Amino acid sequence: MPDQHAAVQPPSPAPGPQRTEFYGRLKGQSLTPLWEVLKGLVPPEPRPTPLPHIWHYDTLRPYLLEAASLVTAEEAERRVLVLENPAFAGKSRATATLYAGIQIVLDGEVAPAHRHTASALRFVLESSGGFTAVGGERTTMRVGDFVITPSWAWHDHGNASGQPIMWMDILDLPMVNFFEGGFSEHHNDQTQSIGRPEGDALARYGAGLLPLDGTGPFGKTSPIFSYPFDRTRAALATVAAAGSADPHWGTTLRYSNPSDGGWAMPTISSWMTHVGAGTSTKAVRSTDGMVVAVAEGRGTVRVGDKRMSFGPRDVFVLPNWTPRSFEAESDCFLFCSSDRVAQEKLGLWREERLQA
Amino acid sequence: MPDQHAAVQPPSPAPGPQRTEFYGRLKGQSLTPLWEVLKGLVPPEPRPTPLPHIWHYDTLRPYLLEAASLVTAEEAERRVLVLENPAFAGKSRATATLYAGIQIVLDGEVAPAHRHTASALRFVLESSGGFTAVGGERTTMRVGDFVITPSWAWHDHGNASGQPIMWMDILDLPMVNFFEGGFSEHHNDQTQSIGRPEGDALARYGAGLLPLDGTGPFGKTSPIFSYPFDRTRAALATVAAAGSADPHWGTTLRYSNPSDGGWAMPTISSWMTHVGAGTSTKAVRSTDGMVVAVAEGRGTVRVGDKRMSFGPRDVFVLPNWTPRSFEAESDCFLFCSSDRVAQEKLGLWREERLQA
Amino acid sequence: MPDQHAAVQPPSPAPGPQRTEFYGRLKGQSLTPLWEVLKGLVPPEPRPTPLPHIWHYDTLRPYLLEAASLVTAEEAERRVLVLENPAFAGKSRATATLYAGIQIVLDGEVAPAHRHTASALRFVLESSGGFTAVGGERTTMRVGDFVITPSWAWHDHGNASGQPIMWMDILDLPMVNFFEGGFSEHHNDQTQSIGRPEGDALARYGAGLLPLDGTGPFGKTSPIFSYPFDRTRAALATVAAAGSADPHWGTTLRYSNPSDGGWAMPTISSWMTHVGAGTSTKAVRSTDGMVVAVAEGRGTVRVGDKRMSFGPRDVFVLPNWTPRSFEAESDCFLFCSSDRVAQEKLGLWREERLQA
Amino acid sequence: MPDQHAAVQPPSPAPGPQRTEFYGRLKGQSLTPLWEVLKGLVPPEPRPTPLPHIWHYDTLRPYLLEAASLVTAEEAERRVLVLENPAFAGKSRATATLYAGIQIVLDGEVAPAHRHTASALRFVLESSGGFTAVGGERTTMRVGDFVITPSWAWHDHGNASGQPIMWMDILDLPMVNFFEGGFSEHHNDQTQSIGRPEGDALARYGAGLLPLDGTGPFGKTSPIFSYPFDRTRAALATVAAAGSADPHWGTTLRYSNPSDGGWAMPTISSWMTHVGAGTSTKAVRSTDGMVVAVAEGRGTVRVGDKRMSFGPRDVFVLPNWTPRSFEAESDCFLFCSSDRVAQEKLGLWREERLQA
Repeated sequence: MPDQHAAVQPPSPAPGPQRTEFYGRLKGQSLTPLWEVLKGLVPPEPRPTPLPHIWHYDTLRPYLLEAASLVTAEEAERRVLVLENPAFAGKSRATATLYAGIQIVLDGEVAPAHRHTASALRFVLESSGGFTAVGGERTTMRVGDFVITPSWAWHDHGNASGQPIMWMDILDLPMVNFFEGGFSEHHNDQTQSIGRPEGDALARYGAGLLPLDGTGPFGKTSPIFSYPFDRTRAALATVAAAGSADPHWGTTLRYSNPSDGGWAMPTISSWMTHVGAGTSTKAVRSTDGMVVAVAEGRGTVRVGDKRMSFGPRDVFVLPNWTPRSFEAESDCFLFCSSDRVAQEKLGLWREERLQA
Repeated sequence: MPDQHAAVQPPSPAPGPQRTEFYGRLKGQSLTPLWEVLKGLVPPEPRPTPLPHIWHYDTLRPYLLEAASLVTAEEAERRVLVLENPAFAGKSRATATLYAGIQIVLDGEVAPAHRHTASALRFVLESSGGFTAVGGERTTMRVGDFVITPSWAWHDHGNASGQPIMWMDILDLPMVNFFEGGFSEHHNDQTQSIGRPEGDALARYGAGLLPLDGTGPFGKTSPIFSYPFDRTRAALATVAAAGSADPHWGTTLRYSNPSDGGWAMPTISSWMTHVGAGTSTKAVRSTDGMVVAVAEGRGTVRVGDKRMSFGPRDVFVLPNWTPRSFEAESDCFLFCSSDRVAQEKLGLWREERLQA
Repeated sequence: MPDQHAAVQPPSPAPGPQRTEFYGRLKGQSLTPLWEVLKGLVPPEPRPTPLPHIWHYDTLRPYLLEAASLVTAEEAERRVLVLENPAFAGKSRATATLYAGIQIVLDGEVAPAHRHTASALRFVLESSGGFTAVGGERTTMRVGDFVITPSWAWHDHGNASGQPIMWMDILDLPMVNFFEGGFSEHHNDQTQSIGRPEGDALARYGAGLLPLDGTGPFGKTSPIFSYPFDRTRAALATVAAAGSADPHWGTTLRYSNPSDGGWAMPTISSWMTHVGAGTSTKAVRSTDGMVVAVAEGRGTVRVGDKRMSFGPRDVFVLPNWTPRSFEAESDCFLFCSSDRVAQEKLGLWREERLQA
Repeated sequence: MPDQHAAVQPPSPAPGPQRTEFYGRLKGQSLTPLWEVLKGLVPPEPRPTPLPHIWHYDTLRPYLLEAASLVTAEEAERRVLVLENPAFAGKSRATATLYAGIQIVLDGEVAPAHRHTASALRFVLESSGGFTAVGGERTTMRVGDFVITPSWAWHDHGNASGQPIMWMDILDLPMVNFFEGGFSEHHNDQTQSIGRPEGDALARYGAGLLPLDGTGPFGKTSPIFSYPFDRTRAALATVAAAGSADPHWGTTLRYSNPSDGGWAMPTISSWMTHVGAGTSTKAVRSTDGMVVAVAEGRGTVRVGDKRMSFGPRDVFVLPNWTPRSFEAESDCFLFCSSDRVAQEKLGLWREERLQA
């Protein structure tokens, strides 16, 4: 993002014996000469670490089933295959700031109740039922549903559907761990007690209405903890039919917190983008790296110099500050997630819309 | 609301010839001795002007039809019978701060496009169709729907349903006129042009989702300009079934602005209260006077020393700072409206929950 | 504020015997035909009720002293001459929504402690000392100081300076009474007990710093309850010297609430305007009517077709939606007050900048 | 922060040949079994990485002067010795999320104009003058002043005082780099052009007043970019004298943004704490690690098991989630800085007040 003021960065001070000797003495005092490290600390523009990557569901699914045959849900606490960006080997990161994984719960299994500072979202990839319990209410997880487990809320997952259920998890664990602010606890019981009927939260907060006092139970997180896909899809299809697609962002609606109009979660932004069959979007880049799960449709994503073909239930990573665009073969509904909300709060988020 | 500090109000200074002569001279200077008027200006607690009053729909309906036979919609611009509180004769006020009326549009008629600073809401009492157009979108008005025409938004009403349509209007006209801040304009055309399909606003803002930029077209007013009754009723019934009724407020959800979680309108609060068949609420009073339309159910409202029986489509006024309670014969769904949001913003709103 | 859509307002339905008979029957049902009153209710633009008016301090002062000789402060509770707009005779209003008056407290007197829903501000016109106590802290009232008594805060005034003190009061009483939401109480003691040293609030909230928890004791009202004139004047003079005067508003800074950056009070806006000697401002009108007290300087204000010359300590009213402009003979510092903050919250405020 | 629900964390699934073989195959697919890494990712409570550390000014100063003799300000762009936490060797971090350093500018030198996404604060340790220019205004840097260079604002430093100037820099560089969202630019000129007189910003935004439009030039950052120590110190001393010290936090006021009442900067919290001579504070821990510069006074800080004695201009680091308390020999004024504001926005911040 250069402008008329941009100038050539000055060279660093040349080393020399006197300086080198001085730097050595500094080290013993827990001091470092800034000019030796300045360029690495303050780059002219973001240099994304993550690599573009796609995990095809056809490949993932057998690994999940094999994992389920080797380790029980209880043993694993959460039986998840972490989607680890090739650039972050050993670090359990999909992007610079987000953890992503695919979880499987077999019929009859329970992922036991715990809670943690980290916020989590689930995007359901395969399900004949199965549920998540949050804050005393269970929600059935259907394909395409967006389910939140807010920071520090007890949650457990179960499945009595007769079939395995699989979903994508995204957590802000790298953020929480960067700030070194994470707590966690295990519940004394496998499952939390249920105090409200299914659908209560959606009725109370998700119908254009709110309780008189306006506040929900989850602090900065949306009190609607389950956004059903059928409703999201219908809304997006209606808006798309009105013909108001953005050239760069397609037709996009973000999951929102009805208590304040902000993003649904305090650290992770989520939205769904529709790209109509046979259409494409123009390239755009933004400072937030994204994890995308394909809710419906087939197409191609261009990200930097790479092209990746995708189909239903595939998951892919689009690195920060790397131009991206979509070409849709069939009508695509793309679930997208990034740290945009955190960057916006901290004053970091930028986008650049390209003409190509 | 006396407390331990409350003391007897001191007597005013006694008049006398010297003082009286002085007061006379003051008058010529556009000056008034405060101590002569202080008690009227600063009462110990609110002295409500409005009277409790009920308009039964069975009585109203023939008058509306007669009005429709005597005056055309175009002639009247808005063919409305104003619900004038008996305490505000000639002032077109239902409460101290709200205007209310019942509007009728016959099949084939148009209430022509205009706009004004005043905000309006409609609550539909009888309809086989009919529509309101706001901001380039038409919405069909069905019984029980809550429809907003935001401040300074063009709006027109029409009806091609084959039957008359009747609804309640509530406007903040007394407020706007108190502040002497009102503007209005007539559109050059009878009806505004329509640029978006019906349902667009509800899809875009009312499904737990928002556009990326978060803002709607109506400034401080909810971008959802039509809240369908079927959805409101279902949500309220679900919450009521969960058994979380408030002793004083029953089961109540307020119409909210998804952009900020506040009330749907900047000057008028609206909510729906459910009182279950055979139950009653405890008395409560608040500084806002209310206009209530019965969406469903039969029962009795006690307000101060008065009891009023109500049935479907009846409209009644509950004065400010007067204890009120409901007894429901059948399941009641009560649409309520007041200036609470304005009072909250100005720091005036108070309630007192009584034990009776 | 007409635009291309503005059209001729249609005529009202002509009366006739059948209609007149009908209207008569409606009256018995507490119903009114809207079309008979519509034009009065919804004007095309504001029709200001208040008249421009100026009270010269030279005239006011002797009346205040005479009042003080006729009625004691205790007797009067508040010994104030109300500045009653000639258009609001008998209504204790300076503008449509604001009460204004001039209060005098003699040496040795006390204006006893009370509290009320209405918010008050004081602008000190003449003082050798004297104090207001609010929330357990006393503040000395010096000429030009802006002092707030927040809604429902105990307050009393005293004077041990050896000289009378006189100040302008502005209250939102017409607003509170329009909403019929006012409460008041008398303290059991003449003066409240003092728990904090003078200057505590200014140190705690007024030095670019805030307590960790950020909140002050007065809800929506600024925790800085006394804004000293010396500081305000110095800041305004510095900004004026930087040469950034607005053509219509001169150099203007508003009194702000450090807790949220909003106006200092929830119902009354206050600001100070500097107009440099020999300069003038262009005409502007806004929907809020103003009360102006001259802190320093001499000049002329044009308001509509009227011109009023002013000098130090004079007080004048500028009606809503009436073009106004200032011509300064000497450097003018003008303390201004209106209901702008209330209008902004309710979505009513507008201004129009004229070229003249 | 255990509660009644806390239970023993379950053991991880034991490895075995079949599992190990499976994990190997996963690695080739950019997949990782969560249960192998879960405990490291989701700890029961924060495990602080930074170590407590103190840099005594008497030690630092000669190194700064030596640096100044070896490298010119222009050559270095910013001649700073980075305060590198011993636990973050090579990473230029004082805490997990903050960069800190000490900068020196000799008489006649210029640190040339540049701008960057990262926000910076300066706390002046030694000065006979010297200035920072931000947004077209210069501010003289006096000992104890808190000066902000907002994100993406051009800034340059200069010194014509005849003596070296030294200050502490704190930047959010680790945060910006964690999010991989940083940009930077060099100005074409050594120094930016100056368009406003010194003191303009403080007058405009720092005197309890704000411009009518309320917004400042720096987005989420306080428009007051220089908080003079004399004013801060006086305010804090006044509040301390009122006797309202918090047992754990002493008398503390935070630097605030007058536009919204929040912290002065969007990513870094700063405050000043007074601890009276001969008094001490109780232990408290919070999830934010701190960098503290001693503005005045001598005393001891206990942090975890370590005790560090400090005097004027010393700088020390207090790690996150480690109990800390102060004992003051003389009146201490401690400038403190952390990422608390970022943690609060993201929903991460917690504190625990201990009884010791």
